[in-house]
Amino acid sequence: MLARYVLLLSLFSSLALSDDQDSTASLLREKALQSNRGWEIVESLTTEVGPRMAGTAADKRAVNWAKALLEKAKAANAFDSVWLEPVTFPVWQRHREQARVVSPYPQPVKITALGYSGSTDGEISAEVIAFPDLASLQEADDALVAGKIVFINQPMYRHREGAGYAEVVPNRYAAGTVAKQKGAVAALIRSAGTDSHRFPHAGVSSRTENPLPAAALSVPDAQQLQRILDRKETLILALDISVSEQPGGESYNVIAQIDGRVDAQKVVLISAHLDSWDLGTGAIDDGAGVAITVAAAQLIGELPQRPKHTIRVVLFANEEQGIWGAKAYAKAHHDELKNYLFASESDFGARPVWRFDTANSALMKKAMPHLAVLNIEEGGEASSGGPDIKPLLAEGVPVFRLKQDGTDYFDYHHTADDTLDKIDAEELKQNIAAWAVVAFLAADMD
Amino acid sequence: MLARYVLLLSLFSSLALSDDQDSTASLLREKALQSNRGWEIVESLTTEVGPRMAGTAADKRAVNWAKALLEKAKAANAFDSVWLEPVTFPVWQRHREQARVVSPYPQPVKITALGYSGSTDGEISAEVIAFPDLASLQEADDALVAGKIVFINQPMYRHREGAGYAEVVPNRYAAGTVAKQKGAVAALIRSAGTDSHRFPHAGVSSRTENPLPAAALSVPDAQQLQRILDRKETLILALDISVSEQPGGESYNVIAQIDGRVDAQKVVLISAHLDSWDLGTGAIDDGAGVAITVAAAQLIGELPQRPKHTIRVVLFANEEQGIWGAKAYAKAHHDELKNYLFASESDFGARPVWRFDTANSALMKKAMPHLAVLNIEEGGEASSGGPDIKPLLAEGVPVFRLKQDGTDYFDYHHTADDTLDKIDAEELKQNIAAWAVVAFLAADMD
Repeated sequence: MLARYVLLLSLFSSLALSDDQDSTASLLREKALQSNRGWEIVESLTTEVGPRMAGTAADKRAVNWAKALLEKAKAANAFDSVWLEPVTFPVWQRHREQARVVSPYPQPVKITALGYSGSTDGEISAEVIAFPDLASLQEADDALVAGKIVFINQPMYRHREGAGYAEVVPNRYAAGTVAKQKGAVAALIRSAGTDSHRFPHAGVSSRTENPLPAAALSVPDAQQLQRILDRKETLILALDISVSEQPGGESYNVIAQIDGRVDAQKVVLISAHLDSWDLGTGAIDDGAGVAITVAAAQLIGELPQRPKHTIRVVLFANEEQGIWGAKAYAKAHHDELKNYLFASESDFGARPVWRFDTANSALMKKAMPHLAVLNIEEGGEASSGGPDIKPLLAEGVPVFRLKQDGTDYFDYHHTADDTLDKIDAEELKQNIAAWAVVAFLAADMD
Repeated sequence: MLARYVLLLSLFSSLALSDDQDSTASLLREKALQSNRGWEIVESLTTEVGPRMAGTAADKRAVNWAKALLEKAKAANAFDSVWLEPVTFPVWQRHREQARVVSPYPQPVKITALGYSGSTDGEISAEVIAFPDLASLQEADDALVAGKIVFINQPMYRHREGAGYAEVVPNRYAAGTVAKQKGAVAALIRSAGTDSHRFPHAGVSSRTENPLPAAALSVPDAQQLQRILDRKETLILALDISVSEQPGGESYNVIAQIDGRVDAQKVVLISAHLDSWDLGTGAIDDGAGVAITVAAAQLIGELPQRPKHTIRVVLFANEEQGIWGAKAYAKAHHDELKNYLFASESDFGARPVWRFDTANSALMKKAMPHLAVLNIEEGGEASSGGPDIKPLLAEGVPVFRLKQDGTDYFDYHHTADDTLDKIDAEELKQNIAAWAVVAFLAADMD
């Protein structure tokens, strides 16, 4: 039904709009909606590589997988060049993470260590002291906190744009650091997640010297600890967290390019990140983005002629632990950034795009007839192009955003449950259609 | 809104029905819908005891918890007696359970050992051979299976009455046994579950001498293995399962009784099971049943006078590993079973009751006006009274059933995700109202 509606509308828009750009955008959109390529890409990445945390052997396999994928498309003339650019970073890994209530009610609880957490060096036990948020911890008397396990139990609310994340993610970044300043022995946070399943949500914390052990509890486990504390009981928790950090990690930004036929120096950069956390197979974060941007670019690369300007697809290394690949890219390409027309990233799952944001009114005007067919509304100026675009935005590169429905994104984000079954193949096609249209029009404008 | 509707309807039914039994049943129903006691019971059990696998220290705490709960109610005259009856069984426990794809695509997969599984004695690696169901495994050439890890990948369908479970649970019982007969080194099943989350579903398998290691994969992990196999690749899996079985486990059926005022020898037995699997906190399986039946009986015990016949609440020991408590009860009480009026168990979660089944037309006629108010429809003969009622049913004890909506029961059943947040307090009240009405009327009939 939706497909028929889309076809009718697209027929109408083909008649209403007449220039070559519009015909090409319509064609791209229709091809994207009929192609299974995006699904094949994310199915392949999540199955044949699976979890691919930066600096691990699996990350190396992911780089090889991406290089092979893009080179195969280049061999079919969809890309003009494919290359790797090195990225270095410390390799943080988890080895063991266990927690249990020692008293008053012995039972295991589900945790996962935060990125750049420290280790407990064997099991430690201490009293738990809870805070409703980071500010309350910051304001707390050090004497109350010293020697204890800090527990920040702040719920995250559900929101289409994921607005709840910004409220709670500071807990993840700073709980360990603030707890350490106050003499605590470890820090726990309620997961930055909107689900009610026993999956702790991983994620990076601020990287410091000699960090405290810091971990996230699943939402039901955070609620369980709170119920015990609500009984005015002294809650003793045992933690056994073993992690390691080694210098000298290396990975690669994997890049493919379609050279512009009029001015190849002018670049539209579309991107995703190739790495994932280690718990799930990185389907929505960010296998979906890899599939969306690569499939969209391939469709453009398969057109009879190149767009006027260059389209570059960048699959960034190590986004998860602090956009290491994006920073390396911005540094390496600093002198050319003035030539960038646009940059954007798909890194918010695979639900339908519902809004297009750009400050460029010409692009907005060109794109909207095609995007409206895909149920995408006209937005305003894009305040962000995605996490890996931050360093480019800071250098003045214009950004656009194809905003996805993130209502359930933080149900799965950074958990073991981020697996292929969470992606809807039809919704993925809508994303690819939107990206193909916008990337093409952005690159083909005068 | 629902509450107002229920009150209006109950007012109407109070006017329409006039005898004392009906007034009492209406009163019980209204009290149940207004009382928070059921929630308090299941909140207490899942928080203060948590997981309580038969024969463990936590199971002992559960018995003490239940005894204290019932004795407190007895002290308030809601029960006339509270006692324990011993149950013995072997103590099976899991110590370690890990699995990973060795080749072609190295990655961890989520498993949980099945009850009465054997150990691998360190990590073993072998090729995986998949079957769509148990029958296909049974029919397979032994030479194809020998030395391999058997994998039965049968999906379970969603159904209000949980009908999909009967189709797949034979895989759980028999996969290990059949695989061993054919010379396999281990057996895996796709979890008997309807969710798409990375929680393997525990559950008992047939207890045999020197069992094979046998485990359940979460549904997404089963799908992942199938995707690898669909590539016609040789899939090598490593398994590390360490479990133990010790003789001499002991627990207790915990029992409370309201003596009938006319003939105390005539008994209506209502029940739940106190044990749970070890992964979750046993909220829907079967903390809910404990809360429902105890709260319902307490409401009856708080009436100004006892019903004509006895109501006995039995919280059975070790249901999960083969209704050990129920078998012990049927044996110990064999000679009195002829006096049992009815027996039933609540062991299917906490979603609303939607149907009442009994072959006793007098009870049906008495109960239905009250149950209809609770949106419960008239059913037919009850084919089961619940898992722990089987031995009583086999001895000819009449059973009734208050059928709950089990549409999502097997999303959580036997997983780490069976926690308190999966219970809706209002739905729990509806259950208690239904049980209070039916247990009272069943015990008060002439």
